Amino acid sequence: MYEIENDLKLRERAQTAFPSGVYGHQASASLSPKHPQFFARAEGGHLWDTDGNEYIDFMCGYGTNLLGYCHPKVDEAAIKQQSIADAATGPSPLMLELAETFNSKVAHADWTMFAKNGTDATTICLMTARAQTGNNTVIVADGAYHGAAPWCTPNMAGVSPADRENQLTYNYNDIESLRAAVAEAGDDLAAIIVSPFKHDVFVDQEWPTEDFAKAARQLCDSTGAALILDDVRCAFRFTLGSSWETVGVTPDLCAMSKSVANGYSLAVVTGNDKFREGASQIYTTGSFWFASVSFAASLATIAAIEEEGAIEAIQSAGDQLRIGLDELATAHGFKLRQTGPSQMPLVLFEDDDMWEKNNFFVAEAVQRGVYLHPWHNMFICAAHTEEVIAEALQRTEGAFAALKQQFG
Amino acid sequence: MYEIENDLKLRERAQTAFPSGVYGHQASASLSPKHPQFFARAEGGHLWDTDGNEYIDFMCGYGTNLLGYCHPKVDEAAIKQQSIADAATGPSPLMLELAETFNSKVAHADWTMFAKNGTDATTICLMTARAQTGNNTVIVADGAYHGAAPWCTPNMAGVSPADRENQLTYNYNDIESLRAAVAEAGDDLAAIIVSPFKHDVFVDQEWPTEDFAKAARQLCDSTGAALILDDVRCAFRFTLGSSWETVGVTPDLCAMSKSVANGYSLAVVTGNDKFREGASQIYTTGSFWFASVSFAASLATIAAIEEEGAIEAIQSAGDQLRIGLDELATAHGFKLRQTGPSQMPLVLFEDDDMWEKNNFFVAEAVQRGVYLHPWHNMFICAAHTEEVIAEALQRTEGAFAALKQQFG
Repeated sequence: MYEIENDLKLRERAQTAFPSGVYGHQASASLSPKHPQFFARAEGGHLWDTDGNEYIDFMCGYGTNLLGYCHPKVDEAAIKQQSIADAATGPSPLMLELAETFNSKVAHADWTMFAKNGTDATTICLMTARAQTGNNTVIVADGAYHGAAPWCTPNMAGVSPADRENQLTYNYNDIESLRAAVAEAGDDLAAIIVSPFKHDVFVDQEWPTEDFAKAARQLCDSTGAALILDDVRCAFRFTLGSSWETVGVTPDLCAMSKSVANGYSLAVVTGNDKFREGASQIYTTGSFWFASVSFAASLATIAAIEEEGAIEAIQSAGDQLRIGLDELATAHGFKLRQTGPSQMPLVLFEDDDMWEKNNFFVAEAVQRGVYLHPWHNMFICAAHTEEVIAEALQRTEGAFAALKQQFG
Repeated sequence: MYEIENDLKLRERAQTAFPSGVYGHQASASLSPKHPQFFARAEGGHLWDTDGNEYIDFMCGYGTNLLGYCHPKVDEAAIKQQSIADAATGPSPLMLELAETFNSKVAHADWTMFAKNGTDATTICLMTARAQTGNNTVIVADGAYHGAAPWCTPNMAGVSPADRENQLTYNYNDIESLRAAVAEAGDDLAAIIVSPFKHDVFVDQEWPTEDFAKAARQLCDSTGAALILDDVRCAFRFTLGSSWETVGVTPDLCAMSKSVANGYSLAVVTGNDKFREGASQIYTTGSFWFASVSFAASLATIAAIEEEGAIEAIQSAGDQLRIGLDELATAHGFKLRQTGPSQMPLVLFEDDDMWEKNNFFVAEAVQRGVYLHPWHNMFICAAHTEEVIAEALQRTEGAFAALKQQFG
């Protein structure tokens, strides 16, 4: 069982150095006391904490790691570009090459823009929709996460009431609620924002029904509003395009980030010609948006995804993990609720209203070298080979045994 | 005289690949037709375009380059960290080390947060001020740039009226206008945002008067509002702290970015204990905010600034350029208006209401290998040695001669 003494000391210092410890989505305060806050090293599908403990990492940088940490070809391309130019007074031609690559690979893409974070990308989509339509109202799914800017952050501290004006909500996969919101927006509808699947925290994940996806598309077609796909978390984990291509619906605007450069900071907006004028009109920029290392890394990532069959590998690894976890749970007398696509699994326990089983199990798994998240969808990467998943399942068996002893 | 045929071809492709060419602050469309859009290489204080032309670069990545592009020690630290961990499931202890470094170097800093771009940092400051005070109104200088989010982007396309609620303006260095805005805000004042100096585009730059800086501080002290210094563009070009330390006034919250990691994407917010609780309450995050390569680069940047006396070198180079340009102008019968600190010069012409001299001169300089900006403050870096500045002045002489021929 792992000890994390160094980590506890670092966390104490972090309480003072930062406002109150590490903030944002990587704050360990919302996890078990056994989850380390800091990591000393990352490679492939593994992490090492500052106490020397090694973990099979099923969060993958919250999705930034798709091919494996420190992927040789991606890092080689990045380091080479770093010696040539990164952030300069103008972009490298790699920016153009990468935009053309997205335009050719993403079904709806007539043009592409780059930024640094998912919030940048979803905000660009929203501004583009408003500029194009001249309308203000945006419809978002209740409980969905679209970034941490004042217009979308899930916590209202520091957000003014005006930041949330012009927003209506619908329930994911609920066509009637979407229609009602569209009706309420009247002639002021700028956009409907959808996630590729419902990947809200704490609750079961849901893949979209074909009817829902088509209804969202049709409502935008009939009103002239933008269908914005927030593909920040999912892009390239299902297909080398926007994730709704897998359900046969293309958005007008798509926000991607996370894994598009296998860990190098990059966000992408792809759009169709219907929204080109709006995108041309907005003023959006960032000091590092034109930096070339991330473009080089993204080009290498796209090439490696194709060469290595990474998308298929991730699906296969996800299926292996899902089946294996179910078998272990059953063998120990528990029933899991595994929802969402197996590439981005959420694992909850049945009969666990107080999250006691979940919290206990995840803490036990972490102490045995399997980094699981109790309430956020997890991520599989291509470095999670059959052997790595088998090893993870073997380590997890001890966590189920401990769970049985506690709750069985 | 340089030709840029390759660049023109790339620009044509960019018209289609992006919404309408390269966007944001690095769009060459707002410069002369002789300014290249794309760059193939950057090193020290120099750039090379895709036609093989070499430029002495006085934009320095719009401020991201402080020590010189491809600085050996910064890049070595970054590449080493890249092989260990960058974006992972949690930050490296380097994040903590860097926060503690900022807390020790920046006079007002009791805590530090990191993000990716200047807009992230100014937005965190605003949210923190609102969370801490419970108020909404923010007072900004008329014409100042604080980022490209809906609340601050200078272009209203895609911005809803609600995005700009709760904002009042003052005129930089005008204490009465600031007092009037504070009075108008009444008991709803959350923050006053100031730039270290007035560095608006198109107009003469202004260093703050001591009285103005002290009045801003006093008005925040008496109302409980946050004094936010938007040091995104200036940080580390005047001192290894917040730039108003040079005028004896410390802010409550300071947003830095650009040069703090010598070109690696990083933004920093420093704050005092008075605003710690507010900063703790807000939810702000980004996929790449916890990536370690930029932390390693920033630590190496801070060390190199101190070791190399970079701040003094930049000031000296800026003075050399300013004096040299004045001499050249006078020798050719022109009078320049050089405003702002010489480290971040804005160079305009007297008797040039239609910008004809300015536009002509800058285009001539660019074609001789001196990359100047016609209406945005420029940036000097530590790789602009005495020899480089002398060479730049020598090249510029031809531009003044051509100007004399045209307008003399």
